[in-house]
Amino acid sequence: MPESHDAVDVIRAKRDRHELDDGQIDWVIDAYTRGVVADEQMSALAMAILLNGMTRREIARWTAAMIASGERMDFSGLSRPTADKHSTGGVGDKITLPLAPLVAACGVAVPQLSGRGLGHTGGTLDKLESIPGWRADLTNEAMLSQLDSVGAVICAAGAGLAPADKKLYALRDVTATVEAIPLIASSIMSKKIAEGTGALVLDVKVGSGAFMKDVADARELATTMVGLGADAGVRTVALLTDMSTPLGLTAGNALEVTESVEVLAGGGPADVRELTLALAREMVAAAGVSDVDPADALADGRAMDAWRAMIAAQGGDPSATLPVAREQHVVTAPRDGVLTRLDALQVGVAAWRLGAGRARKEDVVQAGAGVQWHARPGDSVRAGAPLLTLHTDTPERFERALTSLEGAFDIADADVSDRLPLLIDRIA
Amino acid sequence: MPESHDAVDVIRAKRDRHELDDGQIDWVIDAYTRGVVADEQMSALAMAILLNGMTRREIARWTAAMIASGERMDFSGLSRPTADKHSTGGVGDKITLPLAPLVAACGVAVPQLSGRGLGHTGGTLDKLESIPGWRADLTNEAMLSQLDSVGAVICAAGAGLAPADKKLYALRDVTATVEAIPLIASSIMSKKIAEGTGALVLDVKVGSGAFMKDVADARELATTMVGLGADAGVRTVALLTDMSTPLGLTAGNALEVTESVEVLAGGGPADVRELTLALAREMVAAAGVSDVDPADALADGRAMDAWRAMIAAQGGDPSATLPVAREQHVVTAPRDGVLTRLDALQVGVAAWRLGAGRARKEDVVQAGAGVQWHARPGDSVRAGAPLLTLHTDTPERFERALTSLEGAFDIADADVSDRLPLLIDRIA
Repeated sequence: MPESHDAVDVIRAKRDRHELDDGQIDWVIDAYTRGVVADEQMSALAMAILLNGMTRREIARWTAAMIASGERMDFSGLSRPTADKHSTGGVGDKITLPLAPLVAACGVAVPQLSGRGLGHTGGTLDKLESIPGWRADLTNEAMLSQLDSVGAVICAAGAGLAPADKKLYALRDVTATVEAIPLIASSIMSKKIAEGTGALVLDVKVGSGAFMKDVADARELATTMVGLGADAGVRTVALLTDMSTPLGLTAGNALEVTESVEVLAGGGPADVRELTLALAREMVAAAGVSDVDPADALADGRAMDAWRAMIAAQGGDPSATLPVAREQHVVTAPRDGVLTRLDALQVGVAAWRLGAGRARKEDVVQAGAGVQWHARPGDSVRAGAPLLTLHTDTPERFERALTSLEGAFDIADADVSDRLPLLIDRIA
Repeated sequence: MPESHDAVDVIRAKRDRHELDDGQIDWVIDAYTRGVVADEQMSALAMAILLNGMTRREIARWTAAMIASGERMDFSGLSRPTADKHSTGGVGDKITLPLAPLVAACGVAVPQLSGRGLGHTGGTLDKLESIPGWRADLTNEAMLSQLDSVGAVICAAGAGLAPADKKLYALRDVTATVEAIPLIASSIMSKKIAEGTGALVLDVKVGSGAFMKDVADARELATTMVGLGADAGVRTVALLTDMSTPLGLTAGNALEVTESVEVLAGGGPADVRELTLALAREMVAAAGVSDVDPADALADGRAMDAWRAMIAAQGGDPSATLPVAREQHVVTAPRDGVLTRLDALQVGVAAWRLGAGRARKEDVVQAGAGVQWHARPGDSVRAGAPLLTLHTDTPERFERALTSLEGAFDIADADVSDRLPLLIDRIA
C-alpha cells in the first residue's frame, strides 16, 4: 500500500514553521514506528520541533499518536481509584519510595512504572534493587493483582507501552534533541496516559540538578503536561519543586532506601518528608479521596506496613540488612560558618562516578555507592567536621568523584536567604 | 584512538546558536565520512544549520573540511589557463553545451565536471548522452589529455572528489535540509575547488524554476560562494540570471543538444545566445585572457570546431542524427494575444514527466522526450496555433505532463513589462 504522506514534506512543513495537521502527525509517528520514516528523517524533524516549537494542538496529537503506537493498560476493574506520580528527575530524589506506600495506605492504588538511572540522576528501580530479593519485572497480571491486594506497585514499564516513544527517546539522546519541551511533555505523558492511571501528579524539578534550569521553562513544561493530561481525561496537577540542592541527605541506591525507610518510620530529613506529604496530598485529592490525611497514615504506621507488603510482594525482604560500600572517603568542612549552597548537579555526578549510576545502559550499578552530606544549606558547620562522605566499592573512583565536587558548596559567615523554596509553584 | 569530539556536543552547540570552531568542523566532517558520526546525527546538525545559519568563517572551514575528505585535481601542468562554470540548475539550461567549446576556442581550458538530472532540472550528461557513442566517464588522465588537445571536456565527476559532500548531499535530499545557503554554497564550492580550476563563473538562477525563488536569497548564495572562491584562491564571479521563464525554446535531452548546436552555428534562441556569451566573457576574463572576444569565436566557426572535436574525443559522432521521440502532442493557444508568462517549474516538471528526467537515481531517461515551446514571453500568439509540443516515447505519460502544465502560461491583450531581465546582477 502506498504511504499517505511523505517524510520530506512533513519535515519541510515544520522546518518552515507551519503547523502539522493531524494526518501528518499520525502518519509520521506510525511510519517511524514501522521503520518507514528513517532515523535520519525523524532526527531532522525533532531538531525542527526543538527550534520552531509546536502548538498545544500539535503536542496533544503527537502524544495521542505515540499512545496509539502501543498497548494501553486498564485499571478500571480495581476496587479503588488510581493515582500516579512522575518526577522529571533529580539528585537524591527517592520520593517515590515512601510516597507509593503512603498513598496506598490512604486507599488509592499507585501503579508506579519506573525506569533505571542514566547519567547523574538515580533510577528508582536501581534503588529498590539494593533490597535483597526484590524484582522489578512483573507481568501485567501480577501488577494488577498486587495493586488490588497491596495497593502499590513500583515496577519496570513493559515494552508494549508507547513503543514510538522508546524509539524516539533513544534517538533524541544521540542527536541533541532531548531538551525540547513539546518532546519532553509528549514523551512523559504518552507513557502515563497509556499506563491508564486515573489521576497524575507531576513533580517538575527546577535548578542545577534538573533538566529545567529555570522556573519559566519548568512552568511551561508543567503547563503543557497538565493540559495534555486534562485533554486525555486524566486529572493532572503539577508541583514545581527546587532541585538546585539535592533532596534529603543521601544520593545512592541503598543509601536512599535507608533514608526512605526513615521517613516511613516517622523520621528522615525534613525536606523529604515535606515533599512526600505534599505529593501524597495531591495524589489523594486528585484520586477523589477527601477524608484521609496522609500525615495520619504516616504517623500511625500504615504507610510503613504498606511499604513492607509492597517490597515482600515483589520478592524483597523488608527486614534485610542493606549493602554497604566497602570504602568511604570523608570530606571535611574547610572553615566554620553556614553552608549556603550544595550543588545538586555536582553531587549527582559524584554519586554517579562513585558507581551509583551508569554511563551506558548495559553498565551495572553498585548498591552501596553514593554520597552522603551531613549538612544542608542553612545549617552551621565547623572546620574539620565531616561535610560529605563518599561511598564506593572501588576506591579508584574517589579521585574523579572529588574532582566533580570542586566548588560544589559554599560556606559563609552568615546564611543567605535567596534560595528558592522547596515548593515553588502549583499548576492545576 | 578515542575521538577528539562528541557529536552531541557539536549538534548542541549549533542548536544553541554558538559558532562552531575549526576543530569541531574538521572533526564532524571527517567523522561523518568515516561513519563515526551517524546519519541521524548529521541530519540533526544540518537542520540546526538550516535554521540557525553559519558565519562566513564557519562556511569556509566547512568547505575546506569537505575538500580535505577526498582527492584534489591539479591543472597547473596545462599549457593554458582554466575556467569552469557552475549553474545552480534551471529548466532548459543547456548553456554548458555551447559554452564549454566556445570558451575553449578562446584559448581557455574548460574542465566541466557535470552531473545527471534528478527531478525537474535536466542533467548535462543526460543531454550529451543523446548523441550516439558519446561517453561521460573519463579517467583523470584522459580528461587532462583532452583538455590539452581540445581545450574542453564535459564529463562525470569522479567519486574521489569531496566524498563527504556526496554523502551529505544524499542525506540532505531525504531530510528536507537541501535549502540551507551555507550547505548549498559549501557543497558547490567544495567540488569546484577540489576540481582544481583556476577561475570559476557561477550562474545563480532566480525564479520559479530555480532553487532560489527570490533575488535576495540568490544574492546571498552568490555572495557566499564568491567569498569562498576568493578564500581558496579561485577567481570567482557570479551572475544572477532569471529562471522564472525556461531558457531557449526546448527542455529535454536531444532537443536541447539540437538547440545548442544551432547556437554554435550562429543561430538559436536569443536568450541562450546572450547568456552563453555573457558567461563566456566572464570566464575568459577570469582566466586572465584579455585579447579575445567570444562573439568572434562564435561568428567565425571556431566554437563549432571545438564542439565537434570535444564530442568526437569522447566517442560521440557530432554529425549523427539525434533521437526523436515516437509520439507528439500539441497544445494550442486558447486565444489571440501576447504570451506574458511561461512558468519554468511547470515546464520542467512536464519534461520530467514525459521521460526527460528521472525520479530516482536508477531511472533511465528518454533521449527524445521533452517540451518545445513555440513562443516566449513577449511574443504574440494566435488562437489555435501550436504553443507547446510535448514529446515522449511513451504516450501514457501525456496526461500527467498536461496536468503539470495547467495554469503554466498567461496570454493577455498586451504585454506586461514587470518581468525580470535575463541578467539580473553580477557579483564579483
